[in-house]
Amino acid sequence: MKLLRIGKKGKEIPAALDKNGKYRNLTSIIKDLDPENINFKNLEILKKSNLESLEEINENIRIGSCITKPGNFFAIGLNYAEHAKETGAKTPENPVLFNKSVHSIVGPNDDVIIPKGSNKLDHEVEIAFVIGKVAKRVLEKDAQDYIFGYCICNDISEREWQKEKGGQWVKGKSGDTFGPLGPYLVTKDEIKNINNLNLTLDVNGERHQTGNTNQMIFNFNFLVAHITSFITLMPGDIVTTGTPPGVGLGMSPPVFLKNGDLMNLSIDSLGKQNIKVKAE
Amino acid sequence: MKLLRIGKKGKEIPAALDKNGKYRNLTSIIKDLDPENINFKNLEILKKSNLESLEEINENIRIGSCITKPGNFFAIGLNYAEHAKETGAKTPENPVLFNKSVHSIVGPNDDVIIPKGSNKLDHEVEIAFVIGKVAKRVLEKDAQDYIFGYCICNDISEREWQKEKGGQWVKGKSGDTFGPLGPYLVTKDEIKNINNLNLTLDVNGERHQTGNTNQMIFNFNFLVAHITSFITLMPGDIVTTGTPPGVGLGMSPPVFLKNGDLMNLSIDSLGKQNIKVKAE
Repeated sequence: MKLLRIGKKGKEIPAALDKNGKYRNLTSIIKDLDPENINFKNLEILKKSNLESLEEINENIRIGSCITKPGNFFAIGLNYAEHAKETGAKTPENPVLFNKSVHSIVGPNDDVIIPKGSNKLDHEVEIAFVIGKVAKRVLEKDAQDYIFGYCICNDISEREWQKEKGGQWVKGKSGDTFGPLGPYLVTKDEIKNINNLNLTLDVNGERHQTGNTNQMIFNFNFLVAHITSFITLMPGDIVTTGTPPGVGLGMSPPVFLKNGDLMNLSIDSLGKQNIKVKAE
Repeated sequence: MKLLRIGKKGKEIPAALDKNGKYRNLTSIIKDLDPENINFKNLEILKKSNLESLEEINENIRIGSCITKPGNFFAIGLNYAEHAKETGAKTPENPVLFNKSVHSIVGPNDDVIIPKGSNKLDHEVEIAFVIGKVAKRVLEKDAQDYIFGYCICNDISEREWQKEKGGQWVKGKSGDTFGPLGPYLVTKDEIKNINNLNLTLDVNGERHQTGNTNQMIFNFNFLVAHITSFITLMPGDIVTTGTPPGVGLGMSPPVFLKNGDLMNLSIDSLGKQNIKVKAE
């Protein structure tokens, strides 16, 4: 299923795409796409429902983030070798784990705001996974049992704040609007092979980032096993899994986002984001 | 006021200490101590209420964490010079900011569990502040307007996971039971001078940590200004502010927590924690 949240900011309702690509209102089945409702029991109920019998929602309404109020919003750094290289970092021996503020989350097509005082705002097209049941010391071979679904995450990053302000990376990853998520929370059964999805990000129509999940240093199952060896992940927790090469920081000289830029993100099976960059 | 949450895990109700030290049930006034209810409007209502007229709660019931479901659980590292020194780190030029998993939060007297595979579990007595209204680019001089209150945080840390697993620190700060919070969320008016509070932590009756907030490298107001220059803090967000010297890692040789240890934490105006350490 492709699940999403539709409506004005703070007033979104849960919805799903039906066979014909129409949005159907899920409020008669689940309250929201949040930690209380993201679980496999609800997924079974949703799968059994007749989407076509549910109210159709006007397709011109804003799409919100495809999940709200997660417990944790984790991120993996330097997970594509060519990206690590372009930023001057070594290929990590273990996954680099950090957080984004949960308040940074916005819809997939909402404006990204360059905060006052920011000079080095950058984009990162990524795939996030969302946890569907309590995950503690999960074995790599069992990891998929704990993943509810996947979505696009644009891991917006302020490089000066991330790297030049005394640590740790969360400082540069957490500004308002730094976490566009969605459009869809795509359940696993919709994805043929999660380890072979293409990711792209264009700025003003020019290709900046290109990658495929088959280039990840640490794949999804490994990440679930690694993180849950230290930290119990709970339903609704989000982990965004690193970006392929082509970020602004990696250009020579670096090129950062500026007022009026347009970002277009696309990931196989997960949809697209179309984002305008605005100065605060 | 001294606010707290009382009851079995997951079933806590909000309460306050009255003049005579009795617990009074606040459920007729606020639903919980969480992001939706921690704000200055509710504080005004609570202050005007006649606590003695509210139901008294049996004082032998478990005390839960003094806040639940925060958006973010941030932490500051190396904020006492002598602690930085004992861990072999330089005194930071800027605050070191990292996260603890929000799922690590437990009550102030709940057992701390040594996870399987952990060899270097350590304690850190700290003061956490809790945000009471939206805080974005707050000036240092205005910082207190945004702080709702303070509480004890035992920033339990697995040193191997924090430092030897490829980064970042969140890996070693986020295990189940790694975040005892409370007993009380103490509102600002109850504290004479937040910059002059003594902190102590004993293990098995022996003093390990001693400090005073007047030794903090970055004081509370500075931290609010610094963090909110990058990240908007929202009501209910928690920031624990670093630990004084005396942690197990700083001993020669290092001494880590073991099954059966008893930790006693005490901070002026904020109360005490009494915690048993248990192997998983």
